[in-house]
Amino acid sequence: MKTIQGYDYGKVATSPVSLQELDLLKKTVLFTAEDEKYLRLAGEVLQDQTSQVLDLWYGFVGNNEHLLYYFSKDGQPNQKYLAAVRERFEQWILDLCNRPYDQEWLNYQHEIALRHHSTKKNQTDHVDAAPIIHYRYIVAFIYPITATIKSFLANKGHDAETVDKMYHAWFKAVTLTAILWTYPYVHKGEF
Amino acid sequence: MKTIQGYDYGKVATSPVSLQELDLLKKTVLFTAEDEKYLRLAGEVLQDQTSQVLDLWYGFVGNNEHLLYYFSKDGQPNQKYLAAVRERFEQWILDLCNRPYDQEWLNYQHEIALRHHSTKKNQTDHVDAAPIIHYRYIVAFIYPITATIKSFLANKGHDAETVDKMYHAWFKAVTLTAILWTYPYVHKGEF
Ligand code: HEM
Ligand code: HEM
Repeated sequence: MKTIQGYDYGKVATSPVSLQELDLLKKTVLFTAEDEKYLRLAGEVLQDQTSQVLDLWYGFVGNNEHLLYYFSKDGQPNQKYLAAVRERFEQWILDLCNRPYDQEWLNYQHEIALRHHSTKKNQTDHVDAAPIIHYRYIVAFIYPITATIKSFLANKGHDAETVDKMYHAWFKAVTLTAILWTYPYVHKGEF
Repeated sequence: MKTIQGYDYGKVATSPVSLQELDLLKKTVLFTAEDEKYLRLAGEVLQDQTSQVLDLWYGFVGNNEHLLYYFSKDGQPNQKYLAAVRERFEQWILDLCNRPYDQEWLNYQHEIALRHHSTKKNQTDHVDAAPIIHYRYIVAFIYPITATIKSFLANKGHDAETVDKMYHAWFKAVTLTAILWTYPYVHKGEF
């Protein structure tokens, strides 16, 4: 596996969210062992398509000034920053599909949370850009990140039912991670 | 229209979220005039099915102790509370589909936010139950509330493509409202 700059999976602090809390969240989004199975399949299907997926998502961000803002300083997008994050984002697609959702996974979700929040934003890539990604857009991304994946899931000849099952597993997984990524934004005791 | 106890649409305070911010949120979830059209159609389709939808959703809450908790005191679910909220919840389905997303709509979303948060929970129905619904489950509900609606949308004989368009409009609308409902939980300046 090539080294991805700033990708610190397995090397970060413990998440404030417990595995027990994660279990209840899984129940709430109806996430089961079957979803794990279909996420693994999605991982195989997406393996060689992550660059095309990122082309689409970055195109969306690039076409929306209010989103590109978060990669920018004084209205100038930072290309180095965009490129560095892109590599970790591609890796995240595979991690979402292939990693067991254990303590290590939970910890890295919290690290990503801190990197969107003012606590750690810009530090990993040593850049000077917007100091925080506003909360509302993180939850909003559940929609585009979920809806746009379906055609990629269908690209490898699986029947419609199988594609749908991969899609639902993905939807649940993205919802789970978006929740974990917003922890730093929420009042103490209210998460 | 029959009177629904505690349903105060049009009679509540101004939302802290502006219509301009709502517009950018709509762009972020790819919500367009076409979605409005398909939401109206969904409204027609769901009109006489809201009670069955609520049977399903309340069944889900009732089967999950960690969710029923929010309608309970000392482990005892409050049936009066459940019944009162259910009527407003049915109305919400129709409002989500039929109301224009204008200032009045925005204001009522904020009122519902406050009613899930400790600021106003339990007050409308004069009950004594859990003091706050934890943030994480509000976002988590995006999944069950979205996934389970599809079969109801398909119940009136529309073709698969039309059902899918109604489903996507619904998914976007639920994501939008879940974001607005979490405003009171988020640190000042970070929403
Ligand atoms: C479900 C929603 C989102 C997903 C799945 C997502 C995904 C990711 C991933 C995987 C990373 C790299 C994590 C790492 O360092 O290993 C990242 C970082 C980043 N994302 Fe997001 N993101 C989401 C929401 C957003 C939004 C709404 C924006 C605003 C445009 C955004 C902008 C950024 C930026 C600027 C970074 C770099 C943060 C830093 O300075 O370290 N993300 N995102
Ligand atoms: C997308 C997520 C959710 C939706 C669409 C939803 C929908 C609604 C609606 C429409 C109402 C009535 C609003 C009014 O007063 O007019 C309501 C109230 C309520 N909901 Fe939710 N809800 C969500 C999340 C949750 C969660 C996760 C729980 C926890 C089990 C919950 C429990 C309650 C309770 C206890 C009330 C009554 C609040 C009060 O005391 O006034 N809701 N909800």
